[in-house]
This record gives sequence, structure tokens and C-alpha cells, in this order.
Amino acid sequence: LLTAAYIKTIKSLQLAKFRKELGQFVVEGDKAVRELLQSKQIQTKAVYALPQWFEACQKHSIQILRNANCIETNAHQLAAMTGLKTPTQVLAVAEIPQYILAKIPDNQWVIYLDQVQDPGNVGTILRLADWFGIEWVIASPDTADTWSPKVIQASMGAFARVKSARTDLKRLDLKNTHILAADMHGKSIYTGVAAKSGILIMGNEGQGISVSLEQLITERITIPRHPKGGAESLNVATATAIILSNLHLH
Amino acid sequence: LLTAAYIKTIKSLQLAKFRKELGQFVVEGDKAVRELLQSKQIQTKAVYALPQWFEACQKHSIQILRNANCIETNAHQLAAMTGLKTPTQVLAVAEIPQYILAKIPDNQWVIYLDQVQDPGNVGTILRLADWFGIEWVIASPDTADTWSPKVIQASMGAFARVKSARTDLKRLDLKNTHILAADMHGKSIYTGVAAKSGILIMGNEGQGISVSLEQLITERITIPRHPKGGAESLNVATATAIILSNLHLH
Repeated sequence: LLTAAYIKTIKSLQLAKFRKELGQFVVEGDKAVRELLQSKQIQTKAVYALPQWFEACQKHSIQILRNANCIETNAHQLAAMTGLKTPTQVLAVAEIPQYILAKIPDNQWVIYLDQVQDPGNVGTILRLADWFGIEWVIASPDTADTWSPKVIQASMGAFARVKSARTDLKRLDLKNTHILAADMHGKSIYTGVAAKSGILIMGNEGQGISVSLEQLITERITIPRHPKGGAESLNVATATAIILSNLHLH
Repeated sequence: LLTAAYIKTIKSLQLAKFRKELGQFVVEGDKAVRELLQSKQIQTKAVYALPQWFEACQKHSIQILRNANCIETNAHQLAAMTGLKTPTQVLAVAEIPQYILAKIPDNQWVIYLDQVQDPGNVGTILRLADWFGIEWVIASPDTADTWSPKVIQASMGAFARVKSARTDLKRLDLKNTHILAADMHGKSIYTGVAAKSGILIMGNEGQGISVSLEQLITERITIPRHPKGGAESLNVATATAIILSNLHLH
């Protein structure tokens, strides 16, 4: 039975505090919930949807709902659970996976987000990681919560595939790891990067890389501005796009 | 005198309808207003700010306020004008410039936004254009208004330098113009592009390039997904970033 108290609990998952306390997060909307249900990594606790959503879903892709705990709800209940202005037909609650990066993989890049504040940027970077076949995105303790509704939405399903964990870079075993940092004073990304794998640090939107990480950096790269260009900087997600594209290329 | 009626008029500029009717737009926040005041292209009608903002501004950069119509306001008035949740210390009203792209420049790329809906994406693309020294961003009639507060904010000052005009691509004189389109079925961007200038079409977030533009396209390019990648697509702003970076490179 879906009690008012439980609806309130679901609604509370909009806030980082309650997500941390309960170890759960919310996914909203048809496409995102389908991605969640297909995830091999994330366990769905329950799917709350209008009867017509379950019907449509069963008609087209019966398999993904096989093991799910499906709970029919009405529009009123969904409106009370949602974090969106316009509630969708379906909302799911899932367990936040506790990924642990025991060892830096030696054949691929890992992204480290250093104090990236904007959830739209974090979600867009997860989506980029997913596109470029990057398995891990590590968030510094002060980066936006990777399980927030805005990150989930901007990630466009990437949250269900890319592994995101929250830890301080300094706590990882970095022996023999190439640490590449996007920095205004690095060498041009177009001249190539010395390694084929390692950690790529993307810094805070305004302040760049944290001082405490400086000593860990092996190589600094920059995206050169056009001589006629006027912008002071690039958005962190678009900078990540350009860098990943170049790492991928070389 | 700043009347209640005029405050209401300023507030109405949050909406596309009134921006079009009055030919004016709003810029908020210290940094964005400074960029506006330094623009060679855009005429500022008035700057509304708290007395302390004018004082700080005069202390550090008296020149940009020299020709401006400065109107001291209180926090209550600013709160009534703003479109932000938390009003800043300063808000400016400016004339929407009527740029006309008479001829496609033959030594640089022009970006054409085909039904790009999200103002955050449009603003981020203006910022990218500004970074990569691109002078013109043309918006299709059904692209998000390039003078909306969200676009101005996301552009991080680029609105004051990049020229954005609203017109249908088919109305431009495209003789001898290379028309490059980002498309899922194009050739890899990494193999290079045949031209050094022309128009780059970036399509709608969900639907891609409009059918009506298909016949105009000279070359189609795509950003290849990594074989292990899972994402269905890239965000239009990050895709633009990768393409501009590559056009810039070759």
C-alpha cells in the first residue's frame, strides 16, 4: 500500500540529505526509467506509474518489468512524489550503487570532477563519459551529488551505465597513474597527450583545479582560444567534450 | 523617475513576446552587465543598481559607465524587476541589435541553429562561438530566443560580442557556400572537413536536422561513438564544442 507517509519519503529523495540517509534515489520519466530498468548495475526498488504506463510498457518491452516491483498510482499521488513542475507518468526509486574503484584501470581514462557544482554539467559529463566509453567518473566530496534528479535528467540514461563514486583523489592509489588536468596554462590539447590512460581532472566552473591537487598533476592541457575569440573560459562540460574527443582521437 | 509601471515593463522583458514588442532585453548580474557596457555592438538603455554597485564600479572601471544612463534603485525595486530567484545588485536594459548577415563571410564558419529549443544550450553555443572566434550564430525562427535571460546567462558575456540573428537558412544567399551538417549518418569528424569556411548546421536536441534543410547540405559529419559507448546521442552544445574544436584544428 502506498501511504501518505511513504509518498513523503519518496518526495524527500529530492534532497541530498535524505538520499544519503536512505541510500536511494529517484528516476523520473519514461525514457530514464526504462534505462534504469535495463541497468545491470543498479537495483530498482519500485516503479510507480499510471496504469496506462504499465500497459504500454508491457505491450512493447515486457522483459524489463519482469523483476520490478510495480505499483500502480494515480496522477494525484505522482504529483505528490515528483520533483518536476509537470509530473510524468512514471517515477522509480532505486538503490544508490556503492561502486568502489579499487584500482585505476590501465587501459582507459577515468574522469575526476573536482568541485564541479552545477548538476547540469555533472549530468552532461556522465553522458559524455557514456558516449566515449569511459567507465568511471569520480566525484570529489564537494562536487554536486551525482544521484540528484537534475544530474539524472541531464545524464540522459548515462547514470545507469557509467559508474560514479564519491571520493577524494588523494585517497586513491595513484602509483604509476598519469594525471592529466585541464588548466588555462597547460600545453595545447591539439599537440596530443603523453599517455593513453589515466585520470583526467576537470576543475570547478569558476576556480579551476583545487590547490591541494596541484602536486599530483603529471600533465596540464588547455584548449587554446582562437586569436579572435573573446570568451574568458569554456563551460566545464563543453571543455570535457573537447578533451575527451581529443583523447579518443590520439 | 522609476515608476511602478516601468518596473512592470522591465519585468515583462522576461517574456519573448514583450522583448519582441519593445525590441529590448534584460541583462542581470555584475559580470554580465559589465560585458554589456563594454559591448561595441549593443546599446544599453539604462543600468538599474544599488548605490553600492555604482560606487564599486566607479572605483574600479569608471569608463564603462561614462555614457550609461545610471539609475539608483533599492533592493525592493530590483526584486520586482528581476527574473532570478535571488536578485543581484544590478540589472540593465538594452536594445536588441538588429544584425543582418548580408553575405556569408568567406573566411570563417557561421553556426546555424535549427530548432534548438533549450536556452541553456543556445547560450552555451554562443559562448563556444565566442571562444572559437566565430562572429555569427544564426537562429532558425523556431530556435529559442537568443535574447532570453537564460541564454544571456549561459552565454557568459558572449551575447555582447557574437552576432546573433534570427532568419531561415533558406532565405540566405547560399551560392558557393559549404553547408556542413552534424548528423548521425555523416562521415567521421576526425577525418577532416572539406572546407575551411561555410555554415555549420546544428539540429534540434531530439529530432536532428529539419527535413526542409536536407537538400541544402553539402557535407554531413558525425562524432563517432566509442565502440564501448552506451549513450544514444550527445547534448547539442557538447556536440558543437567537439565539432568547432575539430574545424579549428584542421
